[in-house]
Amino acid sequence: MKVIRRICFLVLLLGAGSVGLGAWVRREVKIPDVLGYETVKCDFHIHTVFSDGAVWPYVRSDEAWREGLDAFAITDHIKNRKHEADLRLDKNRSYEIARPGAEALGLTIIRGGEIASGTAAGHFNAIFLKDVRALDTEEWRDAIKAAVEQGGFVSWNHPGWKKQSPDGIPVWYAEHTELYEKGWMHGIEVVNDDEYYPLAHKWALEKKLTMLGNSDVHYPANMLYEFGEGEHRTMTLVLAKDKSKESIKEALVNRRTVVYGKNMLIGEEKYLRAIFDESVDVINPEVTIRGKEEARIQMRNKSEVDFELVLKGAEEVLKDISAPEKITLYGEGTVQLSIKGKSEEVWGKKKMRLGYEVKNLLVRPGEGLRTEVIVDVNFVAVEKGESK
Amino acid sequence: MKVIRRICFLVLLLGAGSVGLGAWVRREVKIPDVLGYETVKCDFHIHTVFSDGAVWPYVRSDEAWREGLDAFAITDHIKNRKHEADLRLDKNRSYEIARPGAEALGLTIIRGGEIASGTAAGHFNAIFLKDVRALDTEEWRDAIKAAVEQGGFVSWNHPGWKKQSPDGIPVWYAEHTELYEKGWMHGIEVVNDDEYYPLAHKWALEKKLTMLGNSDVHYPANMLYEFGEGEHRTMTLVLAKDKSKESIKEALVNRRTVVYGKNMLIGEEKYLRAIFDESVDVINPEVTIRGKEEARIQMRNKSEVDFELVLKGAEEVLKDISAPEKITLYGEGTVQLSIKGKSEEVWGKKKMRLGYEVKNLLVRPGEGLRTEVIVDVNFVAVEKGESK
Amino acid sequence: MKVIRRICFLVLLLGAGSVGLGAWVRREVKIPDVLGYETVKCDFHIHTVFSDGAVWPYVRSDEAWREGLDAFAITDHIKNRKHEADLRLDKNRSYEIARPGAEALGLTIIRGGEIASGTAAGHFNAIFLKDVRALDTEEWRDAIKAAVEQGGFVSWNHPGWKKQSPDGIPVWYAEHTELYEKGWMHGIEVVNDDEYYPLAHKWALEKKLTMLGNSDVHYPANMLYEFGEGEHRTMTLVLAKDKSKESIKEALVNRRTVVYGKNMLIGEEKYLRAIFDESVDVINPEVTIRGKEEARIQMRNKSEVDFELVLKGAEEVLKDISAPEKITLYGEGTVQLSIKGKSEEVWGKKKMRLGYEVKNLLVRPGEGLRTEVIVDVNFVAVEKGESK
Amino acid sequence: MKVIRRICFLVLLLGAGSVGLGAWVRREVKIPDVLGYETVKCDFHIHTVFSDGAVWPYVRSDEAWREGLDAFAITDHIKNRKHEADLRLDKNRSYEIARPGAEALGLTIIRGGEIASGTAAGHFNAIFLKDVRALDTEEWRDAIKAAVEQGGFVSWNHPGWKKQSPDGIPVWYAEHTELYEKGWMHGIEVVNDDEYYPLAHKWALEKKLTMLGNSDVHYPANMLYEFGEGEHRTMTLVLAKDKSKESIKEALVNRRTVVYGKNMLIGEEKYLRAIFDESVDVINPEVTIRGKEEARIQMRNKSEVDFELVLKGAEEVLKDISAPEKITLYGEGTVQLSIKGKSEEVWGKKKMRLGYEVKNLLVRPGEGLRTEVIVDVNFVAVEKGESK
Repeated sequence: MKVIRRICFLVLLLGAGSVGLGAWVRREVKIPDVLGYETVKCDFHIHTVFSDGAVWPYVRSDEAWREGLDAFAITDHIKNRKHEADLRLDKNRSYEIARPGAEALGLTIIRGGEIASGTAAGHFNAIFLKDVRALDTEEWRDAIKAAVEQGGFVSWNHPGWKKQSPDGIPVWYAEHTELYEKGWMHGIEVVNDDEYYPLAHKWALEKKLTMLGNSDVHYPANMLYEFGEGEHRTMTLVLAKDKSKESIKEALVNRRTVVYGKNMLIGEEKYLRAIFDESVDVINPEVTIRGKEEARIQMRNKSEVDFELVLKGAEEVLKDISAPEKITLYGEGTVQLSIKGKSEEVWGKKKMRLGYEVKNLLVRPGEGLRTEVIVDVNFVAVEKGESK
Repeated sequence: MKVIRRICFLVLLLGAGSVGLGAWVRREVKIPDVLGYETVKCDFHIHTVFSDGAVWPYVRSDEAWREGLDAFAITDHIKNRKHEADLRLDKNRSYEIARPGAEALGLTIIRGGEIASGTAAGHFNAIFLKDVRALDTEEWRDAIKAAVEQGGFVSWNHPGWKKQSPDGIPVWYAEHTELYEKGWMHGIEVVNDDEYYPLAHKWALEKKLTMLGNSDVHYPANMLYEFGEGEHRTMTLVLAKDKSKESIKEALVNRRTVVYGKNMLIGEEKYLRAIFDESVDVINPEVTIRGKEEARIQMRNKSEVDFELVLKGAEEVLKDISAPEKITLYGEGTVQLSIKGKSEEVWGKKKMRLGYEVKNLLVRPGEGLRTEVIVDVNFVAVEKGESK
Repeated sequence: MKVIRRICFLVLLLGAGSVGLGAWVRREVKIPDVLGYETVKCDFHIHTVFSDGAVWPYVRSDEAWREGLDAFAITDHIKNRKHEADLRLDKNRSYEIARPGAEALGLTIIRGGEIASGTAAGHFNAIFLKDVRALDTEEWRDAIKAAVEQGGFVSWNHPGWKKQSPDGIPVWYAEHTELYEKGWMHGIEVVNDDEYYPLAHKWALEKKLTMLGNSDVHYPANMLYEFGEGEHRTMTLVLAKDKSKESIKEALVNRRTVVYGKNMLIGEEKYLRAIFDESVDVINPEVTIRGKEEARIQMRNKSEVDFELVLKGAEEVLKDISAPEKITLYGEGTVQLSIKGKSEEVWGKKKMRLGYEVKNLLVRPGEGLRTEVIVDVNFVAVEKGESK
Repeated sequence: MKVIRRICFLVLLLGAGSVGLGAWVRREVKIPDVLGYETVKCDFHIHTVFSDGAVWPYVRSDEAWREGLDAFAITDHIKNRKHEADLRLDKNRSYEIARPGAEALGLTIIRGGEIASGTAAGHFNAIFLKDVRALDTEEWRDAIKAAVEQGGFVSWNHPGWKKQSPDGIPVWYAEHTELYEKGWMHGIEVVNDDEYYPLAHKWALEKKLTMLGNSDVHYPANMLYEFGEGEHRTMTLVLAKDKSKESIKEALVNRRTVVYGKNMLIGEEKYLRAIFDESVDVINPEVTIRGKEEARIQMRNKSEVDFELVLKGAEEVLKDISAPEKITLYGEGTVQLSIKGKSEEVWGKKKMRLGYEVKNLLVRPGEGLRTEVIVDVNFVAVEKGESK
């Protein structure tokens, strides 16, 4: 299916103003629900013309719907005055303008804002706010405080942002310690747009910060990636009871998130394992191998993510069979892997546990999820030289 | 996902010969199982170099797997001697050569052959054969007889074939009556490759012939259509207990088929209805309309088929609301439809049944499946002139 | 080539403000220069947030560059106050904000505005303005007058706009006569977005109005069509001395335009013929036919437009050969057409002129450009029955 | 344009047999002619069912035409008897069967065969043969001798073939010295399918062997790569006087080839430079930079190859400006590069020579073509602190 198709151009009339919305096709993000939760697709870092973004807020609702998001937060910079020559800069407006469209589309929209510390400590997002204007304080700490007082969830944005850390490696400053110790920093962006920060990933695990992946989109979203052509929007998968604002917040507070960025999934092992196991099936887990011949195993991946597997720690098994060093389980596809016998004499049934590491499902920086492809092999001995 | 990707090139060693098979990605045909049956994806009309086709038989196994088929029959012309200068024309060979690969891939392969009547009555396929050579008879009727004696399922191929009927309109000849009355003609191709024959469709319904849709592919399959780019292989969807040869045959005999060709589904109403209902959900079946304002209904189509709906017979409902004349429910997509109130005074809850005809789900020639989009509308009256 | 690729995100610092521009890939619109002119790709009808559009003006510069335009006009509605709660509505601002980016990208940007008559006569665009604010008059005629006084080029927009003409058929009102007779209406949109108005096309020819095709885009452009996937932006091809504003204006005044919309080219015959002839080559214009056999002619189309040909008025030629009824000359592709002899006795060389109508190159409503495929055929007689 | 489209299925009747050919769309390989030669697109290593390939020979003609080749050689293994149970293995047949279609399509087809040494020295192709059967000798050296006596051009195939060199690194054996010294080895495959052999590349340069890149295709070609989707067929670009067999041979003998494989061009520096220079234009080679501000340079790449540039040896220039470390000149696209001033005081005009290495235009293993982007910069001094 081609995902970008126009049916017609509707005009939605709502409450206090008219909102122009396009009627297009929504494409679901194909990552399964797991562990009794819904896998809610969220982007918590989005800009509009009300700071330094380039689109009117309701475009963000349409984009979110089309691109398969369930929830999103507009987080315009509170101090950014880029468009002030033209625009009245009420920082609640982007939320207010985007909301009718989002609600008509069945999306959860969350009020937020981005706070610049003006120091090397960088930028922070606050979401689930009640009034963004209260964060327009002289001193940036007061803005964070105001956010927390409104029940806001505060996260450190793009910790390896090139403007702060020219080498792209995040630095944990005194300000971060200060916020963290006050309980004023709840999450951290492990992926921002197309940047992944291993150190932020490490800190998130150590300090129990909620891992986030966001687009930080300023331009029209589909000028930035080829949606539906092997590229995807960076997002946070929130394992929540449902798609409501309250449930999303509860899940964020309890760190039930998986970051989906750069064709990787990043998160706690238990969540990644659940997603992988729910996505992947071995279609024929019982095979017969005659002597040194081959058997084919088919594996199906129902998710949209291409899983990249490399053989790891299968020494015991590799005495009896050879197995592929690398497998790509293509998204929404089925692939074959070939295993081969190593002897003409082995015989009988054996349960073979082929250990693989899923390189793009990161449980820690540089460390992929370990999994096993389990196959029951019926080895059939052959006369010497009979198999080829 | 790009569907045509090579991982590596494996060589499969099997029994009496080596069979070269590619290891690629399989893409499922996304049409749901229904009515307690599996929707088995089949192509019963395929050629190889052993008649006038252009590929070695095992290519057909790989193509079938990659393109999401579950079962297929190779049906080389029994009398065609096009390649006889080079090839020993044993008409069992295409099946025998393709079988090891098909089985290694978990596909059901069916032995068959195509019989040319040498008359205007055209060509007939016989599948589920035991020995194709027995059909190489002097007189074509004897070939059909031999097929039937082997338990074969016989069908009339491309009834509107241009070589017979230059205008593309099938003619029912005495020969067809003869076969039909003897019980020697069980099915008919309603779609062959990119040709649909409305008259064959009509006859199938009247005479209780099994409806078939097949590719009749001679060339490498993916030289003929852009698989995964909005085009699909013509196939027969068989509603069977499972994917085994026996179950497929039982389902064919009992006419539980739906033809999938040219982005249409063609079959008995009960089967089309089951597929449509299983594929399509109304996401928000309860909406509120204030006066003459609008509400949006979202419909999701889990199948890969784009369903083309046109408004039909919703007169009663259209007194209260306006609804879209045409809707395309894009495959694997969600779309919005807009309904609007017609009065500022109407109020209360009403169940609205919007009648639509699904133009590309053909229950009869020229007649699409009737369906209803059912929505509970809560009409809220407004002060005169308040709504816009 | 995938056309939407991000390299990095640059920030362009210019004069009095900073303008964020993306650095992407530009894809040329492949339609050749002809008749000594450059074929300048233009869109003269574009909106931004400064009326009822949805993007900040500089996005329009980036879109124009990426989508292969050479020149564009932003034409925000002068009276539209949709965003006035948030924006200071200076109608020169969209031009001023978009200009630095356009110039840095080497694009010609033209100042314009859209005037609503407030009557059934509809909307008019004025481009090549000096100060849009001067068009913000009480009475709409005064706005047109002001535009003309500034040297503006005035055109009638979407004459079959559904809001005016529910049946989509344009109506020529007294107001149009009034403007036309005063010399205040210079052009007319024959295509607006995805709507083509045959009657507007007819009027343009009769009344010597410049034919225009424009996108009238309000949303981010690539939410509206699949650019690079067989869809294209509606535009006006201006045959101009160069890409400068002055040359474009001179060409518009002298009606040297071709409308490119809905995979059609619409314009005066001489321009369409020049584009077709420059785009299409017969690769092997000399062929030999033995008796009733076949010869293949290859035709290459260097332009991006799929040309749709149907056989017309080739009676004389069809005594000797048969030729395809329909040919699609796919954009940037080469196709084969098959011609066949009709007699075993004909012999000698003949120049065959195969008449075709190019259905999607409209010289008048419903009438395609006539062309000839000219082939020198060497007919070779064969012994009776020898050819197949 | 979608490249795989079917118009209809034609049957071509020719001389001694009927050849089924599809009528599709040909897509040119967009790499320019250079140095007064035609850049002839060739694949000299192709299999069919007459050895261990999987398609009937005429499919190779159709594939070649569709995929933009101008010339090709079918080189079935002379000793391979894989299909001998079914096929009469006359090794001239694949050429003979493919020829009528190739000629009807205007393609140059070359008779060839592949000789297995049966030793670690591996396989050799011989093309421009007169009779392949003469190469069916007991001893492989006799086959090479027979090829040479027929005027054949002999090349070493896939020197790093995994079956010989499990680590993929070619070994130069005594047999190669023997052939080379006799003048019996003229070329070497530097790329075979998706394998590039740096050592073979080095040998080709040192020993003045003609560099070849071939597909070695066994299966239907478009099951192996996504033609038109950023993937391409491996081929040899032959710089020849014209597309005739004689001219191609003359060019091969004189080593005027460039290998096109894996999105790389590999060949002698003078040929790569000619192709790059003919493909790439700087659109605006004169720019102005105010102080530390930025200027944009646009570069257009008319070829289909994505050129990957990295900054190299521009030390002198980088005192005055900063320039991008990496540039991808996307195929058939225009990109922007940003250069920035480093001082507010510099002024005057300077010719800046930005040195880049084109990483995927290999003049030697690991060494890309050096090129310069030359820009005339007009530096304008600004008041201190004025530029941003």
